[in-house]
Amino acid sequence: MTAELSRLSLNQETVRQLSLPELVEGCAKAGIGSVGLWRAPVQEYGVERAGQLMEDAGLTVTSLCRGGFLTATEPGERARALDDNRAAVDEAAGVNTDTLVLVSGGLPAGEKDLHAARERIADALAELAPYAYERGVRLAIEPLHPMFASDRCVVSTLSQALDLAERFPAEQVGVVVDAYHVWWDDQVAAQIARAGAGGRIHSFQLADWITPLPAGVLVGRGQLGDGCVDFRGMRRQVEATGFDGPIEVEIFNEGLWARDGAEVIGEVAARYLEHAC
Amino acid sequence: MTAELSRLSLNQETVRQLSLPELVEGCAKAGIGSVGLWRAPVQEYGVERAGQLMEDAGLTVTSLCRGGFLTATEPGERARALDDNRAAVDEAAGVNTDTLVLVSGGLPAGEKDLHAARERIADALAELAPYAYERGVRLAIEPLHPMFASDRCVVSTLSQALDLAERFPAEQVGVVVDAYHVWWDDQVAAQIARAGAGGRIHSFQLADWITPLPAGVLVGRGQLGDGCVDFRGMRRQVEATGFDGPIEVEIFNEGLWARDGAEVIGEVAARYLEHAC
Repeated sequence: MTAELSRLSLNQETVRQLSLPELVEGCAKAGIGSVGLWRAPVQEYGVERAGQLMEDAGLTVTSLCRGGFLTATEPGERARALDDNRAAVDEAAGVNTDTLVLVSGGLPAGEKDLHAARERIADALAELAPYAYERGVRLAIEPLHPMFASDRCVVSTLSQALDLAERFPAEQVGVVVDAYHVWWDDQVAAQIARAGAGGRIHSFQLADWITPLPAGVLVGRGQLGDGCVDFRGMRRQVEATGFDGPIEVEIFNEGLWARDGAEVIGEVAARYLEHAC
Repeated sequence: MTAELSRLSLNQETVRQLSLPELVEGCAKAGIGSVGLWRAPVQEYGVERAGQLMEDAGLTVTSLCRGGFLTATEPGERARALDDNRAAVDEAAGVNTDTLVLVSGGLPAGEKDLHAARERIADALAELAPYAYERGVRLAIEPLHPMFASDRCVVSTLSQALDLAERFPAEQVGVVVDAYHVWWDDQVAAQIARAGAGGRIHSFQLADWITPLPAGVLVGRGQLGDGCVDFRGMRRQVEATGFDGPIEVEIFNEGLWARDGAEVIGEVAARYLEHAC
């Protein structure tokens, strides 16, 4: 691993066409020493077995995606969501990562009250944060781009994520700074400073913003350098707070998924060096 | 026209399948006394002729869409954009509306500096605002949803729009409060109060937020009541500032465009009464 790549973590969803062993192999070949994992492929492979695979390969697991979806109003649904999040915490601990990413959830059908939905997230965090802390896992609230506010995540800005996180100790609840979701916000520099000063940058992620967005908008992220996000500028802001943690590349893109995964990993490393270093 | 519909204005793009005379006829039938117009159909019909048509029908023109696209860096392109905006002002005056809506423009190809793009908008406003004022036209900066930040409008929040508008007199430059674009923002109530206190709510528009978004995301707006926007709540916030102007319904939706236009106008009126009154 070259020194320049030492901070890079590859989120596995970027190359979802690869199995976990193929991911390990591809990272070794590209000189990448860290990965972010997703629950479904980890569950499929076996949590303990996945953790062992990463450990044997010397790979650091920088995050597990994802818990969350904590906005339900119906009591049974809320209880199931909390159970599922406790399971996600256990899985995070099982693959030896200290960070569980939370996508908070959208508005339940028929609901229009964003404030109330955000308060239900806070209530859920109060139950989950101590549970996670006891298992060595920090919860990282990820603000998602406002285009996801109704159906995925009512937490749309870093400011909103911090308003929630700051109700809890920083060792328990922090935020994800994902360039794709927050690049457009003129408050982002100030909010990164706020997050960093509080020790709450629990994850820093990169994907580029490209248009036109595809139908459903979920898988429209761009390879680094293909869009308009100033990664170097945002990295400077994040590091000015003292952050020296992993920089995770997480791209959902049908074009990347259709290609040879090892080749995509090599391209991610090259683009990271070109655009984020 | 019933008293309940007296504030409703129908933006013609909601029923783009209709010619201007058909629009006039449909509004008369539905008891709607105000419309928002678009430049292309007005130009095609003839500006003076369109203004006369509206006057003869007793229709108030609450806005003309749209000027803007003021972020170019290349001098020739900037000059052409300013010329085009002066023409838009003239057309607004020609159809007897006092409000020209501005969609500010996205990032030019290869540019990543949002702040610089916003400053170029301010520079352009300094040239255009006095020109418009002399012709009885106010410029209304429309913040567009952040999903349009790169390709249509680097002004993504009401706060950013006001930061720009407040550099100029309120009689010259204000903002559009479009529920579709700002509903997700937890700062929106405070920014509506700020806009209203400054006399800068130059247009108030409604469309509902529905998902999944279509490819390109431009024409994914929902009929009032089909989505999650709390129109009544936002109207209360707007009117708490003393605003008593038109409430314009502007929906871009392939489904509505495929239907009988007069029927859509009737539905808009009914939905407006049901969800925004």
